[in-house]
Amino acid sequence: MSAAVSAPAVAQMDVEDQIETRQSAFTFAAWNMGKIKAQAVDGAVAYNEQQMLAAANAIASVANSGLGSLFGPGTALDENDNTRLKPEFFDKPDRAREVAINFAQEATKLQEIAANGAEKAAVAAQFSEVGKTCKACHDDFRAE
Amino acid sequence: MSAAVSAPAVAQMDVEDQIETRQSAFTFAAWNMGKIKAQAVDGAVAYNEQQMLAAANAIASVANSGLGSLFGPGTALDENDNTRLKPEFFDKPDRAREVAINFAQEATKLQEIAANGAEKAAVAAQFSEVGKTCKACHDDFRAE
Repeated sequence: MSAAVSAPAVAQMDVEDQIETRQSAFTFAAWNMGKIKAQAVDGAVAYNEQQMLAAANAIASVANSGLGSLFGPGTALDENDNTRLKPEFFDKPDRAREVAINFAQEATKLQEIAANGAEKAAVAAQFSEVGKTCKACHDDFRAE
Repeated sequence: MSAAVSAPAVAQMDVEDQIETRQSAFTFAAWNMGKIKAQAVDGAVAYNEQQMLAAANAIASVANSGLGSLFGPGTALDENDNTRLKPEFFDKPDRAREVAINFAQEATKLQEIAANGAEKAAVAAQFSEVGKTCKACHDDFRAE
C-alpha cells in the first residue's frame, strides 16, 4: 500500500501545522512542476535531463509522503481562513483516497520515465497525466 | 555536478516567490526529518521501513532540487522582513556552495541507507549526519 494512504508517520500535528505543512508540500511540488513545464512543455528553458529527474523525484516524493496525515479533522475552510480545502473532503473519503492514489501513481510513473532518460516528449506526456491528477483534486476539493 | 549547485531550472522567480518557495521546501524537509526522528531516534512512533524510505526520499529530493536558484540577489533579511537569511550569505559563495553540497551528499546517503532496508540504528546515525548539515547552514546563514 502506498505511504500516501497509510498511517501517520509522526504523532498527530495540530491543525495549523497540518495546513502549513501540506501547503508547503504543494508549493514545493508546484515549483518542480514548473521546471518540467518550462523545459519539457514550453521549451522556455533549455532541456536538462538531470534537472528533469530531480524535479520528477521531488514531485514523486511529495505524492508518496503520506499527505493524508496533513488532512485531519478540522482542517477545512469552514473552520480555518487560511486554507481552501472544502469541507466535502471529509464526506468523501473514498474519493479523497482515490485522488491521492492517482497522484502518487502518476507522479511515480513520471519519476520512472525521467530516471530512464526518456525523451522530452515522453516526459511532457506524463507531466500532463500528473497535472490531471492535480486538477482532479482541485476540482473536487479546493475552493476557488 | 549536483543539481543543488547547477543553473536555474526555471526562469528567474521574483524575490517573494523565491523566499516562499525555499521556505516551503525546508518546511517539507523538516516534516520528513521529524518522521525519522520520531521513529528511528525517539521511538515515539512505531518504526516503519517504508515510511522511513519515503521520508528519506523527500529530504533527498529537497536537497537535490537546486535550492540555490531560490537564494538570488535581494532575498536576504536586509531587504525583506519575511526571511532570516543573513546578508553574509552573498559574501561567502564558496561556503554557501559547500553547505548545499554537504546537505545534498548526506541526504542522498540517508536515502541510500533507507532504500537498502537498513536497521533503525543505521538510519538514526545517518539522520544525525544530515541534521549536522542543516545546523551548519543555520549557524552560518540564518539569523536567530
